[in-house]
Amino acid sequence: MSPKPDARLNPAGLPVAYQGEPGAFSERAVLEMFGAQTGTLPCRSFRQVFTAVTGGQVRYGILPLENSLAGSILENYDGLLEHDVQIVAECRLRVVHNLIANRGVSLQEIRRIYAHPQAAAQCDRFLLQHPDWTLFQVYDTAGSVKMIRDEGCRDGAAIAGDTAASTYGMDVLLAGIENDPSNTTRFVVISRPGETPAGTGKTTLVYGTRNEPGALLKTLEIFRDHGVNMTRLESRPIPGRPWEYLFYVDLVGTTGSALLDRLRRRTTRLKILGCYPEA
Amino acid sequence: MSPKPDARLNPAGLPVAYQGEPGAFSERAVLEMFGAQTGTLPCRSFRQVFTAVTGGQVRYGILPLENSLAGSILENYDGLLEHDVQIVAECRLRVVHNLIANRGVSLQEIRRIYAHPQAAAQCDRFLLQHPDWTLFQVYDTAGSVKMIRDEGCRDGAAIAGDTAASTYGMDVLLAGIENDPSNTTRFVVISRPGETPAGTGKTTLVYGTRNEPGALLKTLEIFRDHGVNMTRLESRPIPGRPWEYLFYVDLVGTTGSALLDRLRRRTTRLKILGCYPEA
Repeated sequence: MSPKPDARLNPAGLPVAYQGEPGAFSERAVLEMFGAQTGTLPCRSFRQVFTAVTGGQVRYGILPLENSLAGSILENYDGLLEHDVQIVAECRLRVVHNLIANRGVSLQEIRRIYAHPQAAAQCDRFLLQHPDWTLFQVYDTAGSVKMIRDEGCRDGAAIAGDTAASTYGMDVLLAGIENDPSNTTRFVVISRPGETPAGTGKTTLVYGTRNEPGALLKTLEIFRDHGVNMTRLESRPIPGRPWEYLFYVDLVGTTGSALLDRLRRRTTRLKILGCYPEA
Repeated sequence: MSPKPDARLNPAGLPVAYQGEPGAFSERAVLEMFGAQTGTLPCRSFRQVFTAVTGGQVRYGILPLENSLAGSILENYDGLLEHDVQIVAECRLRVVHNLIANRGVSLQEIRRIYAHPQAAAQCDRFLLQHPDWTLFQVYDTAGSVKMIRDEGCRDGAAIAGDTAASTYGMDVLLAGIENDPSNTTRFVVISRPGETPAGTGKTTLVYGTRNEPGALLKTLEIFRDHGVNMTRLESRPIPGRPWEYLFYVDLVGTTGSALLDRLRRRTTRLKILGCYPEA
């Protein structure tokens, strides 16, 4: 699952922005993608990752787009449309969640769980076995570990990767508490448009369709006619136009100008979010 | 936007389960759908709404499925597949969010916001104007109002509907702080299968497709061939099978056995989640 570090993407080892505290899964994705020597810029929110890239503070940012258990990180789909960025690479990271507590705390002492909503969703079968625990949502997996360490609490545990436990000197009470052992997150690397030459293999697009029957079908027929395989379809509402949707699609194959011209005539809004090598 | 109370659905005025505290938008949806005399059963989680219905504690439950600004409530799509329930009705509720605080608190005193993640998403433009405020996530809009009332805090505010403010005797500091004045949530009413005769007009289905190019397209062609209009398409990951998806579709028109037989041959898993009148 781990891609090889692609030093060509970032030969100067420039810092790469990610959301979370040191020890976060996004930080690990940066290191797997760019190599262990790459600098990192931790950001408090996904929005800050976008603005660090668009503002020129960093050349690259990394963002989770979807998890194989919990589904899409909808905020980042919206962000790809809103910000002037392009996708230049993707990677997939196996995500193992652990129950992490202060040194010497036992499972029986736990009453409170601090977890990122996505992490909690990926471990909800485990959490359902402990209905007496109260769940508190924290914006970041590694940040939840840091929080219980800083507070020194004996009745709280966090859900995060083992890197977060070792980063903050904490104990792993239980390892691998995610619902499914194939739990994987897909990340994309973003840059400002034109900063990195477009790759080939995979294309991510977003478009709206006219509000008429069969409008989405007609766009999928275009992909079929051009021998392009759609590997992902995500829909998001259009603000201010209730019950109309934008469609985000991933295409594998050659998306030439003939395909795009035809698609443009069938869609109300079309943005190419990036062309990049398939992971 | 408000549907007329449909007393025929619940002539005995039996309690209807909803997620949240009294004053929640889901409670308002129950009252608009079933009439002001209907009893209600507040539940702490969406899962409890499902199990109150499947366990026979109530005949009906109400669940939000999608919001016109923030998108789908993914947990409830998953729940419709997981639990043995059927959709028997739908309604759409205009959602106006307000900044609510204890009596006499001024906007200048606010430092902390307590909000449901969906409510925060629907008001994120307003919240971005106040970067110094810290956001705490609470499982329920009305519950966040009750929380700051119980704590009597002077530096905290909640985001909720005006019913929540009046229910708990709190002040509306600012009204209508949602990003867009067309903010609307679609709710569905669920019951145990067979408890209510199926309606006509709209059908909600979920299915998987074979992992082959054009598989989704072929299912949409079936809908077109049968003159049925697809008004919604939502995809969700299949646990344990990374990068394969289930598709939830809403169809308007007659979905007879010929359509369903054809669809069954093209899909790996097909569940009819309900046939009901279009709102």
